[in-house]
Amino acid sequence: MTSTNLSRPICILGLGLIGGSLLRDLAAQGVHVYGYNRSGSGARAASAAGFDASDDLALTLQRAEQDRAIIVVATPMPAIPGLLDAIMEHAPSCGITDVVSVKAAVYDLVKERGLEDRYVGGHPMAGTADSGWDASREGLFTRAAWVITYDHAPDASPEWIALWTEVARMILGVGADAIPARVGRHDAAVARVSHLVHVFAETLAIVGDNGGALAQSLAAGSFRDSTRVAGTQPSLVQAMCETNADAVVAALDEALELLHDARDSLAKDRPDLTALAETGYAARVRFEARHGARGESVSPVKISSRPLLRLHPGTPGWVRQLEQAESLGGRIDIF
Amino acid sequence: MTSTNLSRPICILGLGLIGGSLLRDLAAQGVHVYGYNRSGSGARAASAAGFDASDDLALTLQRAEQDRAIIVVATPMPAIPGLLDAIMEHAPSCGITDVVSVKAAVYDLVKERGLEDRYVGGHPMAGTADSGWDASREGLFTRAAWVITYDHAPDASPEWIALWTEVARMILGVGADAIPARVGRHDAAVARVSHLVHVFAETLAIVGDNGGALAQSLAAGSFRDSTRVAGTQPSLVQAMCETNADAVVAALDEALELLHDARDSLAKDRPDLTALAETGYAARVRFEARHGARGESVSPVKISSRPLLRLHPGTPGWVRQLEQAESLGGRIDIF
Repeated sequence: MTSTNLSRPICILGLGLIGGSLLRDLAAQGVHVYGYNRSGSGARAASAAGFDASDDLALTLQRAEQDRAIIVVATPMPAIPGLLDAIMEHAPSCGITDVVSVKAAVYDLVKERGLEDRYVGGHPMAGTADSGWDASREGLFTRAAWVITYDHAPDASPEWIALWTEVARMILGVGADAIPARVGRHDAAVARVSHLVHVFAETLAIVGDNGGALAQSLAAGSFRDSTRVAGTQPSLVQAMCETNADAVVAALDEALELLHDARDSLAKDRPDLTALAETGYAARVRFEARHGARGESVSPVKISSRPLLRLHPGTPGWVRQLEQAESLGGRIDIF
Repeated sequence: MTSTNLSRPICILGLGLIGGSLLRDLAAQGVHVYGYNRSGSGARAASAAGFDASDDLALTLQRAEQDRAIIVVATPMPAIPGLLDAIMEHAPSCGITDVVSVKAAVYDLVKERGLEDRYVGGHPMAGTADSGWDASREGLFTRAAWVITYDHAPDASPEWIALWTEVARMILGVGADAIPARVGRHDAAVARVSHLVHVFAETLAIVGDNGGALAQSLAAGSFRDSTRVAGTQPSLVQAMCETNADAVVAALDEALELLHDARDSLAKDRPDLTALAETGYAARVRFEARHGARGESVSPVKISSRPLLRLHPGTPGWVRQLEQAESLGGRIDIF
């Protein structure tokens, strides 16, 4: 793991699963880190566990401004506009990052406020089944993908490049794989591999339930696994899919075409599912090969199977290096 | 576990995952059991492990005929017609059951040969990821659903009722939950909770793969779980879905209607996924409640969460009891 070597404190807004786990990891490495949580009980629980946490937003942001902290907005999408406004009021010179699972919708809010040169988007892919401070834990991000956006890089000031570098160091510091992606590319990718998975899981759960007691009784491991994320709170699923609707519709249209083809092949006099079964199998085998090192390693040290690109932010050609990493789904290291 | 108390030997045709595991479980309980495997290497491996196995089909069936054994056809669908013909030639008075994952297509083959009064259909829901003798193991069926068909019950002879009773005892003897279902009801149910899951998994795997390296890199646990069964050999997926095409098309049409509604709701000016997210969540919660005892128990003794009906085969009203168990997805015990 790259050791965390940050030149600024970190101020986390929202101490739930992601924000709380980030607070724990950074504190464990001796980083100067503190947080705010809207619910007093969450803030008190974090304080009682020995962390520096408050439920006073204005005070926390004023402190961040004095410290020149980087602010991590670690709340769901609906809270983002209000928090950006509060940051503009109380911490007008702090750099900002976030952890929301869609990036274009957040970037629109950032651009509306003219904050592009103070903002770097982030998205750690680290689970949503449980939530709240009580679900947070050290080590949550180990070898998880953590997207870092870079749309502003071609127009960036030295300050933005410094901010971007600090955010990347923070991601690497908690053991995640920092994966550069522009907001549009990120949203299209997660629509395919995450949001569509939720839409399918909800659908399967309903069709299975419609089969009544016999169908439910016969449902085994494959049904359980494929509908697991339908157990996510509906409001969270809605927040993800509705704020990324264009990309989800595009992925869904692609899926619908495959499903209609399969349906027509099965409705023939001689039903034939060869095309879907063989293409799907080949796709899954490629996925397994790509993720093999992560899934199968028995070593306690998790090894990333993602290609690594080392770069020096701000040097000539670094934007092209970011684009290359993006196209490979690669992780970066900073030197 | 109900102790296995069989009055006839068991002859298993096909010693793969299911047939091999059945051979192991029955032998461990002192049941008189032997098997045939088409590949000599599989038969030799079973023999070397101390079991009574042969690769000579005619001899094995002649022995079954002499023993008045019950024959368990434990091969995939494509081998069924040939094996039924061989049984008619070499074991013309033996009772027959099978383990194929579709039941109407098998029952058609049985009816074509006039074997209804000698046949009881079966389907253990016990996994398909691995196959062959090497994948077989003791205890595979513990608390698994094992469907037992009863379409012939209203017209049954005393011999058929005796056969049905023996097959039920065999199922209970290996620790499975014996769940009565007519072939059409079974096929409709597994189309929803198993075959549709495969179609969805293949589709998700393809759409994810089409997203290229970035999408694959960002794919996390939910994508992995939801596409797991796309790793099944395509020929097995085809055999399941193509031989149950009518029921799969019906389930798929239901799913397509939900997906098109979701697509249209997401394509609106104000995207809205409330209906699918809330209905899917409620369905999944019901599934979890129903399966709770099975999934969460930490006891080494697995407890079934399925309702239990005790019945005495052949007594007045027993067909109505079977229908009641079927409608509840319930398991039966024999007294």
